[in-house]
Amino acid sequence: MTIWDDLGLSGRRAIIVHQDDLGMMEAVNRAYIELGLPTGSIMFPGSWAPQLTHGDLGVHLTLTSEWTTLRMRPLTAGYSLRDHQGFFWQTVESAWMNVRLEEAVAEMRAQIDAAAHLGIDATHIDTHMGAVMRPDIAQAYHDLAVEYRLPCLLPERIDRGLPDFVRVPLEQLMEASPLPRTTLVDTYELGPQRAAWYADTLSQLGPGVYHLIHHAAVPTPEAQALSDWEKRNGDFEALRDATVRRVLDEFVLLTYRDVRDALRKYL
Amino acid sequence: MTIWDDLGLSGRRAIIVHQDDLGMMEAVNRAYIELGLPTGSIMFPGSWAPQLTHGDLGVHLTLTSEWTTLRMRPLTAGYSLRDHQGFFWQTVESAWMNVRLEEAVAEMRAQIDAAAHLGIDATHIDTHMGAVMRPDIAQAYHDLAVEYRLPCLLPERIDRGLPDFVRVPLEQLMEASPLPRTTLVDTYELGPQRAAWYADTLSQLGPGVYHLIHHAAVPTPEAQALSDWEKRNGDFEALRDATVRRVLDEFVLLTYRDVRDALRKYL
Repeated sequence: MTIWDDLGLSGRRAIIVHQDDLGMMEAVNRAYIELGLPTGSIMFPGSWAPQLTHGDLGVHLTLTSEWTTLRMRPLTAGYSLRDHQGFFWQTVESAWMNVRLEEAVAEMRAQIDAAAHLGIDATHIDTHMGAVMRPDIAQAYHDLAVEYRLPCLLPERIDRGLPDFVRVPLEQLMEASPLPRTTLVDTYELGPQRAAWYADTLSQLGPGVYHLIHHAAVPTPEAQALSDWEKRNGDFEALRDATVRRVLDEFVLLTYRDVRDALRKYL
Repeated sequence: MTIWDDLGLSGRRAIIVHQDDLGMMEAVNRAYIELGLPTGSIMFPGSWAPQLTHGDLGVHLTLTSEWTTLRMRPLTAGYSLRDHQGFFWQTVESAWMNVRLEEAVAEMRAQIDAAAHLGIDATHIDTHMGAVMRPDIAQAYHDLAVEYRLPCLLPERIDRGLPDFVRVPLEQLMEASPLPRTTLVDTYELGPQRAAWYADTLSQLGPGVYHLIHHAAVPTPEAQALSDWEKRNGDFEALRDATVRRVLDEFVLLTYRDVRDALRKYL
């Protein structure tokens, strides 16, 4: 991949440590500030999106709202984006079965534009819960990235377990794309002892460009109102762990700003 | 006022202890639960609106979003409801100068309907920052209350300091209304020592029906991210104060459910 050569990454180990779900609650923004790691993406339908303005910040494109106590609504009027209570669909499955492509595109565009309206120089786009990976929406997501001259999260490998009607068009999309791809390292499903997993797994990675997904949150009462708060606090603790930090120091700590700026030579 | 007679309140001291801004953040919902006082109203554009489902709960009609770190967007598409960043206007003045009546009505209706969509049997409507008191919007707010057969917050007295073009039509609206009015007791501008003020002021009130506005929040990091958190925590502490509770015990603790159910005889 030419862009990785341009960035001097050939044969090296580079990692983007990426915090998902910024703007959702104060506790995730606080974790971002306390960790001091640059990269993450903001849910612009979240009330706390305006709190963060500086960093290597992207747009966490949102078509789903999975919790029960905290829920988000679309920025645009599309009827198909909403469940019967007016919120985003609660599951990826229900979003995939109900969302109309043109309404998803209008919503994604509004969320990207919301960043600029808040004075944020977005460095990338990615996807909450992978909801944009319905093949037709994925094509639009990709094309918006090209239009805005931004990298988007594209995995190096598509999950072989996906049914063909999803997997095949996604693989075709990836093959035809001028955008760079990364190897995903997703921590969400981990149990306790996250620091040990982070240190072990990261230290075993070979040369490549990795996108590590984490969901750090500080353990405030607000965070604890979500059922998955222990996972989120586990990510926060793991990324403060001295051993994990030493392992991360052995990588090139890449930002999406680096990727974006290198990419713009080609777009 | 016949309805107060129907409720057996003639010559007595009755109070609705009303928590504003529910649904805005977890810290205000938590204060509501910890205080155990029944009455408050929910901001349905707030992410945390779905957390509260039981109580004497109304709709805190929202046309403004005054903070900077936490902001809310309209539920409906009306262009005039939004500032250039897509949020509700930050001040009442800018809302009054920009909002088109028909778009305000659509938004107020959507917020009232949002309660039902969440399974909340709303007992009343009121107004965030008084933004609905622009005379034409106030008439619509009043008429929505009549249509939904709900009490709305209507003050016994209109502030004499308002300019005539606002004050006169509001007074005419109040005079012509079949809905009951209450005497407002607003604590927002108080400084520290709130418990002493609550106890002193409330103990001096004569017979009447009072609507006490408070903005209680627990002092979590989330709450402290708003600049007025000390006022909010002051209300929380005042309403937990044993002396204030004793003073409140000398009132009839009225709910909007009582008022609504009595009112429906007339609407």
